[in-house]
Amino acid sequence: MGNSFLPRSRNPATIKLAQKQLAAVLHADWKPRDSYKPTDEEVKTRRATYASRVWHKPRVQVEDIPIPEIGSKEVLVHLKACGICGSDLHMYESDKDGYILYPGLVKTPVVMGHELGGIIEKVGNEVTGVKVGDYVVCEEMWYCNECDPCRTGNFNQCVNLMEMGFTDDGGFQQYMKIHQKFCWKINDFKKVYRTDDKVFEAGSLIEPACVAYNGMFIRAGGFKPGSSVAVWGTGPIGLGAIGLAKAAGAGKIIAFEPRTKRAQIAREVGANDVFDPFELKKSGTEPWEKVNELTGGEGVDMHVEAAGDPSFIMPQAERCMTIGGKIVDIGRADKAAPVFFEMYQVRALQAYGTQGHAGAGVWPSVIKLMASGRLDTTNIITGRYPISDVPKALEKLLNREDAKITVKP
Amino acid sequence: MGNSFLPRSRNPATIKLAQKQLAAVLHADWKPRDSYKPTDEEVKTRRATYASRVWHKPRVQVEDIPIPEIGSKEVLVHLKACGICGSDLHMYESDKDGYILYPGLVKTPVVMGHELGGIIEKVGNEVTGVKVGDYVVCEEMWYCNECDPCRTGNFNQCVNLMEMGFTDDGGFQQYMKIHQKFCWKINDFKKVYRTDDKVFEAGSLIEPACVAYNGMFIRAGGFKPGSSVAVWGTGPIGLGAIGLAKAAGAGKIIAFEPRTKRAQIAREVGANDVFDPFELKKSGTEPWEKVNELTGGEGVDMHVEAAGDPSFIMPQAERCMTIGGKIVDIGRADKAAPVFFEMYQVRALQAYGTQGHAGAGVWPSVIKLMASGRLDTTNIITGRYPISDVPKALEKLLNREDAKITVKP
Amino acid sequence: MGNSFLPRSRNPATIKLAQKQLAAVLHADWKPRDSYKPTDEEVKTRRATYASRVWHKPRVQVEDIPIPEIGSKEVLVHLKACGICGSDLHMYESDKDGYILYPGLVKTPVVMGHELGGIIEKVGNEVTGVKVGDYVVCEEMWYCNECDPCRTGNFNQCVNLMEMGFTDDGGFQQYMKIHQKFCWKINDFKKVYRTDDKVFEAGSLIEPACVAYNGMFIRAGGFKPGSSVAVWGTGPIGLGAIGLAKAAGAGKIIAFEPRTKRAQIAREVGANDVFDPFELKKSGTEPWEKVNELTGGEGVDMHVEAAGDPSFIMPQAERCMTIGGKIVDIGRADKAAPVFFEMYQVRALQAYGTQGHAGAGVWPSVIKLMASGRLDTTNIITGRYPISDVPKALEKLLNREDAKITVKP
Amino acid sequence: MGNSFLPRSRNPATIKLAQKQLAAVLHADWKPRDSYKPTDEEVKTRRATYASRVWHKPRVQVEDIPIPEIGSKEVLVHLKACGICGSDLHMYESDKDGYILYPGLVKTPVVMGHELGGIIEKVGNEVTGVKVGDYVVCEEMWYCNECDPCRTGNFNQCVNLMEMGFTDDGGFQQYMKIHQKFCWKINDFKKVYRTDDKVFEAGSLIEPACVAYNGMFIRAGGFKPGSSVAVWGTGPIGLGAIGLAKAAGAGKIIAFEPRTKRAQIAREVGANDVFDPFELKKSGTEPWEKVNELTGGEGVDMHVEAAGDPSFIMPQAERCMTIGGKIVDIGRADKAAPVFFEMYQVRALQAYGTQGHAGAGVWPSVIKLMASGRLDTTNIITGRYPISDVPKALEKLLNREDAKITVKP
Repeated sequence: MGNSFLPRSRNPATIKLAQKQLAAVLHADWKPRDSYKPTDEEVKTRRATYASRVWHKPRVQVEDIPIPEIGSKEVLVHLKACGICGSDLHMYESDKDGYILYPGLVKTPVVMGHELGGIIEKVGNEVTGVKVGDYVVCEEMWYCNECDPCRTGNFNQCVNLMEMGFTDDGGFQQYMKIHQKFCWKINDFKKVYRTDDKVFEAGSLIEPACVAYNGMFIRAGGFKPGSSVAVWGTGPIGLGAIGLAKAAGAGKIIAFEPRTKRAQIAREVGANDVFDPFELKKSGTEPWEKVNELTGGEGVDMHVEAAGDPSFIMPQAERCMTIGGKIVDIGRADKAAPVFFEMYQVRALQAYGTQGHAGAGVWPSVIKLMASGRLDTTNIITGRYPISDVPKALEKLLNREDAKITVKP
Repeated sequence: MGNSFLPRSRNPATIKLAQKQLAAVLHADWKPRDSYKPTDEEVKTRRATYASRVWHKPRVQVEDIPIPEIGSKEVLVHLKACGICGSDLHMYESDKDGYILYPGLVKTPVVMGHELGGIIEKVGNEVTGVKVGDYVVCEEMWYCNECDPCRTGNFNQCVNLMEMGFTDDGGFQQYMKIHQKFCWKINDFKKVYRTDDKVFEAGSLIEPACVAYNGMFIRAGGFKPGSSVAVWGTGPIGLGAIGLAKAAGAGKIIAFEPRTKRAQIAREVGANDVFDPFELKKSGTEPWEKVNELTGGEGVDMHVEAAGDPSFIMPQAERCMTIGGKIVDIGRADKAAPVFFEMYQVRALQAYGTQGHAGAGVWPSVIKLMASGRLDTTNIITGRYPISDVPKALEKLLNREDAKITVKP
Repeated sequence: MGNSFLPRSRNPATIKLAQKQLAAVLHADWKPRDSYKPTDEEVKTRRATYASRVWHKPRVQVEDIPIPEIGSKEVLVHLKACGICGSDLHMYESDKDGYILYPGLVKTPVVMGHELGGIIEKVGNEVTGVKVGDYVVCEEMWYCNECDPCRTGNFNQCVNLMEMGFTDDGGFQQYMKIHQKFCWKINDFKKVYRTDDKVFEAGSLIEPACVAYNGMFIRAGGFKPGSSVAVWGTGPIGLGAIGLAKAAGAGKIIAFEPRTKRAQIAREVGANDVFDPFELKKSGTEPWEKVNELTGGEGVDMHVEAAGDPSFIMPQAERCMTIGGKIVDIGRADKAAPVFFEMYQVRALQAYGTQGHAGAGVWPSVIKLMASGRLDTTNIITGRYPISDVPKALEKLLNREDAKITVKP
Repeated sequence: MGNSFLPRSRNPATIKLAQKQLAAVLHADWKPRDSYKPTDEEVKTRRATYASRVWHKPRVQVEDIPIPEIGSKEVLVHLKACGICGSDLHMYESDKDGYILYPGLVKTPVVMGHELGGIIEKVGNEVTGVKVGDYVVCEEMWYCNECDPCRTGNFNQCVNLMEMGFTDDGGFQQYMKIHQKFCWKINDFKKVYRTDDKVFEAGSLIEPACVAYNGMFIRAGGFKPGSSVAVWGTGPIGLGAIGLAKAAGAGKIIAFEPRTKRAQIAREVGANDVFDPFELKKSGTEPWEKVNELTGGEGVDMHVEAAGDPSFIMPQAERCMTIGGKIVDIGRADKAAPVFFEMYQVRALQAYGTQGHAGAGVWPSVIKLMASGRLDTTNIITGRYPISDVPKALEKLLNREDAKITVKP
């Protein structure tokens, strides 16, 4: 087992021999919808701001591509694990007109994957933050540090954002290049997770946990220890939210999830109670009534919307909140949700929108929680595939029963 | 003028002679709607939680009533000015079925009026906080200090709330009794406002300003000096919000108000620009476009909803906010408003509901602002009436052109 | 065991028979030091603001006293457990001139004891918050709700403070009277702690944990999950701080404590490492160097000073803090400590003073943490005595090895 | 006057002709004290972390130097005004052993000056944030965006900090190069300040105001409108603090300053009262007593230490603070100050150290305050000199009577 830590990848000979590497690459055709006229910038860079309006006929191919060259402040990471995210699936899927489902920023061809960890293989000559052999995880949001939001520390709102696995090659390859500032060391994980396999599986779960952490503790300012928390939707972000709520001293955690398998994992990760909201309604009990019942009529101190269905969840949440309670909206939805502000007034409530995971110490905080053993969500991984089977893994995920499938390059 | 400060009311002889006093009293009939069954508590106390479901045929009568006796921790205040609030008007008005319009907590008969100031005439034997002759203003929300919200400092959410001018006799009389803890001294006002008349007119404007202050600075945490602020609706609370935004260093203040007279006052109180939102729309410009235009595309840092129309305002506001911006909802509305949380996510926005003005240093803060001359909204008073003319004043207010009418007992 | 929950004390007959009850009462002589002239208020009320300047020859006697009568908003609590605090010891001890050591507010004779829990035996006719048979714990700081600090929610700064066990009879008796607003229900504890014995031992530990909670999470605003925390001094408050840090997701907890037994308990409660600071120094390592070593050079995010020795601790703490780190000073000390603000500037540090535990949801939060099992400090109780042995228990405590001795009435 | 806006500097011909420009350059000899051994990094880069331990015999020379070449993300600024800071003076002065007084980071030779504004003359080919002709001010702290503090948004704590005017050529020259991300536009100033002269004088005062802003509103979280503020020391930062306190709605501002001329300016900028603390003491009144007297015994809500003498000020400040009050320490001092934490506990106080002005929206906020006319400190400029007279200006400043002297290139 000790052997598992042998930094095999550090052997320069390996690279010399293999100038080519295996990768799962997303291809699609640049074919703007009739209703959409790309900007000059989009045409020039081939980066579509709204992928679903431009990219047609997406397909994921396993192929040999060159190992990337690195710049003076970049590093080459020998990837060891990369989770498949719902966004990856949405880039793989297309609508009835053949357009990619994912609505955000995408350039193709691109190596997908952005929940990843690996070992530093090579460093540029101005790199000082990490060194060859370091175990690292990598941020997905490549912010510019020069626009106004970045200059005020709002990296998640960067207007020049590049995204690993969306505009630049990400995790479904063997060797990835990245600027040193997006790398965070997880060398400490070895003490807790023991084998490289587990170390990097844990590492690959940091990104979704960071999204939850940023929403709950940075954007919404956290909750006081002893508080009650409700989490709506238990995909990887919702599960991260549950694990974090437990780690941060929630006195009670209630989750809502219709899928049986995910509900089970939610319990394992820390939820005291998990309900299928639709079954509840069928049986004559509103989800908000259940929350009030379980909290002695008080409601919870924080709601985490991680299901992408605010139209259903907001009216529920606002009826089962403590005085001064908070709603954090993480899930994305393309339409307005009804909010009854009278309730916000009477009970002194507030709602926060959140996206991303950059800045504010989010990554090192989650890393410390994982390194201390206070947060461990590794049991949410329910499938493991090599790069060559990425297409198969994507197919498997279409049923949305798995909590997390991880690619092991 | 010096004479105006002569504390005439302190002469005990005055009271001896006049054991009766003049008051404008709200009467109505206890006649619950068919669709509403009052609780036992309501029946016992005659305090209707939802006035509009119970109280029928409201009428305001000017009559002689006894000067109240005070308890050991109470004081008797010789009232000098009392503003008429929109709520007062809603207690005076009735719907087509004859029910009072005001939807909140009311007991009748009751002396209305809750924006008031006066001079301490008499104090109970355990009173230590104020003394005879002090100039004071009085809180309207009589919180209990014993329920759970009160024990956590959330006085505005008190579950045993009594309300001056709603459940207990308020400001449209000559002498009012009140617990000492709801009194705040404004003796300092004399230096700035010079005459008693002005002192108490200023004092009577504290209450609505406190509602705005509580929403903007306590509930929503304020804004950084230099920020831009938009205020929707310029009734007394909206005007207070404008004055406070100016006092607190807003770099730019934009107001929306369809009524010409109020728009003019808004400018005087501190708004850089005031627009009629409906005229703007007619002319082909959305209000949110105008805000973005005036802020170089950035939007404002804080929106204050003081019009009671979140369904119109929320979709406007969320399109013209800076990154990290805040919406504070003060106006009451009986239905859900559409909120596009995607926008909250992309721009890191948050929304707060707020009610009341109790606790958190709100009253002394507003008093200090007024005493220092940094906040002066006295020019919003557009009418003055004696108690005997309260019915006339209420009639006058039905047209909603006046910003504020003040009763001078 | 189920039997142990039989509310024996609820039988009114019990009280009828025993109109007298056993109590450990502190007596002392009113004999102001030559250097101190008591105020008129002090003379009138016999409440000395600085006990150590007035009260002479303290002695604790076990005696029969009447069971108190309760007022309309008061309750009678049948006490079941009451911890002995360092303050109690300081009221028992005297200096070389024979004056009580405790420097704060005291009136004698008084029944000492303020870390307590029991069962509601009787309620006044206006009591609505609790009922006979409820298991409760009681706040020690009886704030007035009428002074300026109270009106702004700063109950811990009440200027009319009365203190249970200091100015009014507290926990070393069988039946105590108290205003309903200072009682908090712990009925839920039965699920976790099983027997009444354990329920009330846990309950008696809430007060010191609340002092730590108030300092760490209310005054200093808490820390982000994953943070490192150092606790200086592991008396009951320091142990509470350790337990709370663990519950709230501290990634690493370092404690300093010279007493071996307490150090051992500190580990059991959650400290990752415990050091004797004086031994460290003797061996050539400064405590701050050890903290930096254990945190990879970063220092901790929060220091909790619970030893009452800021002169020693502040210069240590400021050298081993993360950027943006916080120091919370809970321990009392009668002299100024040196603070090197240059360090505060370079590393963006802040320091907070804290006292008390009232308001801000502190009590219900700690209760929820204990009820959920996330905070359990019951193993810090190292001795149990009946009321009749309070003098013996105080003697035992003089050696300061015990973490906590509990009186079981 | 319209003529004053003619962008003369934009004429490329000007530069072609004058490839050389005038500058005031600091020279000194690398001669480490015997007691100090420079690090390898220091030797290699000639950047001394502690200038006063290395740089010997400082002298400021006016000379011709080349106009700098700019990189792809850099701009060339035609400087128009640059204030002389106390730090500049400390680099000019030497101690008895001949070492530079300034204790911080310095490389020589270097063009001093870091409080500056000018017009964009040329931009690199990747510059997008500003364009030729923009009026700009420039940040002094050139943070790296790659170290851990930068990655968490704590730019002021950057471990790779470079400093304009200390390690890189700054303001006492005609043309300066700088990365675009450190430039902020002040084109709006033209509306308020009318002439270029005034525009850039105002601009040159932004940097010290930003230091005060960062301390008061970012680090310490600001104060509620209506609060009282005390400012200790009225150099440019203290004057900025006074102006900001006024702009942000302080109800009362008390300043302490022994120098008569500065005291006068303090009043003009917004202080309600200014006292010479030493005169006060001589006359038998402690400064803290005066503050309490002026605030009705309450004390102030925020103290700003801008005199660099915490040993004198902290013991004063802690005795005249409201409950929940804050002390912000901005002035630098090389020794520990006594802090009586008992006072912090009794009154719920807190102290913050602060340095720098980067990030968190500080620059754009101060710019907006100045552009709106709510903050105008231009009357603190008491002297104006051309570059050729920088040595003379430095000599003049040695008497510390001037509030601010400005160099006009």
